[in-house]
This record gives sequence, structure tokens and C-alpha cells, in this order.
Amino acid sequence: MSALIPQTIPLELSGERFRIAYRLGGTEGEARARARDICLEQTVEFPDELVPEGPIRDYVVGRLENFEPRGDRAYHAVISFPVETAGDDLSQLLNVVLGNISLKPAIRAESLELPPSLLGRFRGPRFGRTGLRELTGAQQRPLLSTALKPMGLAPADLAELAYRFALGGIDLIKDDHGLTNQTFSRFDERLARCTDAVAKANRETGMKCLYLPNVTASPEEMLRRSRLAKQAGAGGLLICPGICGLDAMRAVADDDATALPIMAHPAFQGSFVVRPEEGFSHGLIFGTIARLAGADSTIFPNFGGRFSFSREECCQIAAASESPLGSLRPIFPAPAGGLTLARVPEVQQVYGRELVILVGGGLFKHGPDLIENCRVFRKLAEQFHALA
Amino acid sequence: MSALIPQTIPLELSGERFRIAYRLGGTEGEARARARDICLEQTVEFPDELVPEGPIRDYVVGRLENFEPRGDRAYHAVISFPVETAGDDLSQLLNVVLGNISLKPAIRAESLELPPSLLGRFRGPRFGRTGLRELTGAQQRPLLSTALKPMGLAPADLAELAYRFALGGIDLIKDDHGLTNQTFSRFDERLARCTDAVAKANRETGMKCLYLPNVTASPEEMLRRSRLAKQAGAGGLLICPGICGLDAMRAVADDDATALPIMAHPAFQGSFVVRPEEGFSHGLIFGTIARLAGADSTIFPNFGGRFSFSREECCQIAAASESPLGSLRPIFPAPAGGLTLARVPEVQQVYGRELVILVGGGLFKHGPDLIENCRVFRKLAEQFHALA
Repeated sequence: MSALIPQTIPLELSGERFRIAYRLGGTEGEARARARDICLEQTVEFPDELVPEGPIRDYVVGRLENFEPRGDRAYHAVISFPVETAGDDLSQLLNVVLGNISLKPAIRAESLELPPSLLGRFRGPRFGRTGLRELTGAQQRPLLSTALKPMGLAPADLAELAYRFALGGIDLIKDDHGLTNQTFSRFDERLARCTDAVAKANRETGMKCLYLPNVTASPEEMLRRSRLAKQAGAGGLLICPGICGLDAMRAVADDDATALPIMAHPAFQGSFVVRPEEGFSHGLIFGTIARLAGADSTIFPNFGGRFSFSREECCQIAAASESPLGSLRPIFPAPAGGLTLARVPEVQQVYGRELVILVGGGLFKHGPDLIENCRVFRKLAEQFHALA
Repeated sequence: MSALIPQTIPLELSGERFRIAYRLGGTEGEARARARDICLEQTVEFPDELVPEGPIRDYVVGRLENFEPRGDRAYHAVISFPVETAGDDLSQLLNVVLGNISLKPAIRAESLELPPSLLGRFRGPRFGRTGLRELTGAQQRPLLSTALKPMGLAPADLAELAYRFALGGIDLIKDDHGLTNQTFSRFDERLARCTDAVAKANRETGMKCLYLPNVTASPEEMLRRSRLAKQAGAGGLLICPGICGLDAMRAVADDDATALPIMAHPAFQGSFVVRPEEGFSHGLIFGTIARLAGADSTIFPNFGGRFSFSREECCQIAAASESPLGSLRPIFPAPAGGLTLARVPEVQQVYGRELVILVGGGLFKHGPDLIENCRVFRKLAEQFHALA
């Protein structure tokens, strides 16, 4: 009982480690201090001088594996952690990557390197690109997506919109992420009406349009809505993991009673990327982590629209959506945010055909006939494939 | 079928609105454009010229209620939204406050003003300050808290630490937020051992120390751990809402089968506050929103420690932890992060007695006897009350 920190039971670790790359701001001295701080803060959260000698100091504390200057007055640091620190779930992995240090300036998590033992804990996207192509029948071209809005329309009117979108050849019709369970648009009624409307259009066209209701809510309600969506015949789900939690989206993705493809929406996650000094790199949060959390497609604001992402940042997301990640499936990047039909060719040139193109309000702007506007949209994607 | 946007069902709204205050950066023209953008982006998410005339344009779209310059080269804008836009849950309220616009620069949500009809949807903290004082028996003085760490210790050793902390007079002993369910410290075993250790100490001292295991995990597992904690006789819960989602913490707070006080931990929420231009004000996210989400105490990094919050920002959190919020209880601010016993008098002077003081590693630094260090800590709080 005399030792300040009792340690009667030996610590056993596998020796396997995962690696996180950070961007650290400041002078070299400051950046090195930040690196050491990450090693402690994300594990023992203990003053350096108090960390017990032995395996806790030698193995649990993060280890600086690489440190070098980058071009942008910052430093690139790779820090490794024992796989055991990440516990057995996504929540704790996220906590090691950017838990407490999110509260400190000039630290940004940029990429992850997870060994098979850690990656194996994640099922990842249930469908991914291949699955979404099978479900929609769009074997080669970019997939077309749009959103049901504006907020304030009743389910019957949203269903009419969904019907027209589906007739026009849209592949993925999602709820606007602001539609949840409002007095003017109750979830259950909207789900039933929009599912029916899309099914009716599919019977008429022979196409395989999917309707994706927004199920973002508290955990219990999100699971209820997801399962109800499956029963009702919806084609997928829209989830905002920034609001409900990434591990909650993962739980829906892993739920065998739901088993529907998921589009992840970036609402509430902007603070992670809006400044280059802190938070996450775009590729890490909207690419790698979205995949770990089970998204089959990841929506993000396209460059040049009404948001602030650069072309380079968007391409980083697209790259992370398909880069090797154990056995986890590649997913579709889904650039969005103020896209018009006029910009579709450019978007296709930039991202290629492994793409969901999400045009919302812009689809209403092209001409007075919504179905015709959708057909123009579809033709752009089909022509691109024919040319490519 | 000819109208571009079908609207066959009239929209009925109560007319009640809630108000959000934002800090908007840029010139006056840029800030006004940002305000208009918020009005659209957070509701209809539609190009201005396409928003249907009538109640959607007149009532659903946000309304700029006030706009004025502030001292810091920015503007203060108050925008109101119909209560119906916030749906029926915390998730959608958060989405209206900072969903899509989190992705845009120079917009920060600073405060909320919710009418009774909206506030009434939230139970808020189940215990609050009064409840925590009753449970711990600390009727007047600041409450004392510490954390079980470092990561890497086995449950038996953490339980020995908990025993000493409890003998020394700590009121709230929480798991370090990095302890979840690791091979070296399984949740179920840690819960059982630490609960027993604290109960044993309480029998010896006659005091009412509470042990708060960290239950942050996926929704299903978090609920399981919370209920297990209740059954095992734990005194409360530690939750990181930035990781699991604010509405998931709210669900645990509202769960009658758990019914334990909750300390909210700020891990993963730093990106919301680390820059003054975006995200949330400190008072809004760690005060108001933490209360809406059911926290009974809100942990945040104290000024002057190893984190970057200013004294003013910390006091803003303390103010929001007790400012009027319908019938929602005031909660305890819990400054933490590198606190030492030497700083306790200053902390008490700044925050007053309605306070949880969280000293982690610093408690090991004061002297070689941990129990004695706790007693010194406790004496500082008792003296403060006697003096006050």
C-alpha cells in the first residue's frame, strides 16, 4: 500500500501497434512538444514524470515514429499506439485518434494505419460501390442522386417529387437531412408515401431507383426508423454521423435486421475540417472514418459551390473512399452542395465514374419540367460513360 | 403535375419561434450574406429564388431578428426559426443550430433562446447540483473529483487507487475517459472491483463517495454498461458526448432503468471551440447543450492548464451551467486538465462553491501518500466554504 501507483498485475500487450499521422503547427520545438503531448494525453493522461516505469511507459504511451517538416510551416508526425489502447470499438479508436487533443490548438489528425487485428474489428460498408451498383443497376456510369425538399412540404408532396425524380432516372433519392419527424412531415408517413411513390415509378420505368429516408435521431429511434424503413421497402438510409455519433451509424450499418445501404451526410462535422490547423484531414473524417463507420457513400460539399472545400480536399476524400483498408469495401464519394447540371461534366472529369453526383436545388433550376431535368442529368452521366 | 414544386397540402405552424445568436465574421456585407445563408441553409436548403411563396418562405425560412457589430471585427446576428423545424428531438435541434453551416467559415453559434414548448421536450439533468449534493452529502462546499488512471493498470490496481481516493475524502471518482473495455481493463471487472472498493471505503469513513465508470461506447453497449453500473451500485456515469453523440447521452440520462448522475467529458468536442470563428461558444456547447443533453456536471479544461481555454471562456461555461433554462436544473461546472492542489484556492475564488474541482494527475504530485494528498484537497474545499 506504500507505492503511489499500485501495479500488482503485470500488463500484457500483443506488441502490435497502429499509427496515426498528425499535422503539428508551430516551431520545431513546439511541434515536438505537441508530439510528446499527444503520446501522453491520448493514453495515460498523466504527467510525464509520474508515468510508471516498465510496460506502461515503454508501450502504452504513444511513440513518435517519424517527425519531419512539411511545406506549410508545420510538421508531420507519425505516432504509434498499442492496438489494445483502442479497446474493442470505434468509439475508443476515435478517442485515441482525437479525443482530448481536439481541445488543443495546432494538432490535426491526417491519416490512420491500422493493422489487420484492428481493422478486423470493423465490418465497414455492407454494400460499398459494388453493392450500390447492383442495387441500382447502374453498372458503369456515375450514380445520380438528389434530395427531397424544401422543408415545409407535406409527405404527399414530397412523395410526388420523389415520383418525378424516379421517373426521370435518378438512382438515389434521399430525404433532405433536415427532414426528420416534424409536425408537417412525420417520418412514418413520409417513409410510407415516398417508398410507394418510388416503387410505382420503378414499375413504370423498369429502373431501380432507391429511396433513402433520413433516420438521424436518438439511438433507439434511429434503430426503429431504420428497421421500419427496411420493412417498408426503402432502398437505403441517410444518416448524419456528426449528430448521432459515428459508432451509432456503425451500429445501424451492422444491424442485420436493417441491412440497407447508408449515405453519410456531413452536417455538424464541419468544425472538424473548417480550419486546416485542427480537427481531421478531409480524407480521414469523410473517407477513412466514414468507411470504418459503415457508410456506403459519403456526401461532402464539392469545391466551387456554396461551401469552402478546395478541389484538393475533395479529391483527398475521393482517394480515401477507395484506398486499401483491409477488407473494407470502397465507397462512393458523393460531392454535393449547390451543384447545377452545368457543372456535372466537370465533376465527372474530376472524380471519374466511381461517383455519386448529388444535385439538389440545382435540379429545379435547369428548366420548368422536373422529370425532363432529371433526364438531362442522366444523359450527362450516360454520355460521360460512353466517352470514357 | 405542372408546378415545379408541388404543394397541395397547406402548411400549419404554431407561430412560435426559437432564437439562435451567431457570431458572423467578415465585412458587414459578408456577415449579412452569411446571416441570409443561415436562414436558408438550416431550413429549406434551397436557392433563395426557388423557395415557394407563402408560409415556407414567410415562416419556415429563418428570420434575421437582430444584426449589429461587435468589438472583434465581427457581427452579432440573432436568427429565429419556427419551433417545428427542430422536430421532436435533440438531434434535429442541433442540426438547425449548426448542421450544414458548420461546414462554412466564420459562423459560430453562441447562444440559444428556446420557448417553453421546445424546452419542455427536454428533461435535462436528472440530478443537477442539488441532486449531486444530496448523493454525496456535500451540502455547501465545492465537490472534489479525480480520475482513475493511468491507462494500463489492471482493474484490481485501479480499485486500490479508488479505495485510497475514497478514504481520502474525494466525492466523485471517475474512470479516466480513455478507460473503456480494454484487454488490460475490462469494463465489467473494473466496474465490479471499483464499486466494491469505494463501498468498502465508504463503510469505513461514513462518507458517500461515488464511483463513475466510463460507459462511452456504441449506443447499445453504452445502455448495457449504464444499466449494469446501476445494478452494481456505481454512483454515476462518465460519458463523452462528443464521441457517442449528445442525443445518446440524453437517452442514458432519461433511462429510468439507469437513473445515475452523469459527468460529461469534452473529449472529441475540441474542434467545436478551438477557434473563435467557428463552431460553438464555450458556454453553448459545454453549458447549455450539455444541460439539454442531460449532464449533471460538465467537465472542461480549466484556464492556465495544459489546454487553451481562457478564464473568460471558462466563466462563460460556469454561467451557462446555471443560467435560467426553463425547468432544467443547474449543473456543476467541473474545471480540470492539469490542475494541482496549489491551484485549488484560485479555482474556488474564480468559480465559487457551486463547483466540482477535478484534479487528476496533480493529486499524485503533492506528496508521497495519496490518501493524505486527498485529505489536503478536501481541507482546501472545506476551508474555502468556512471562509466564504
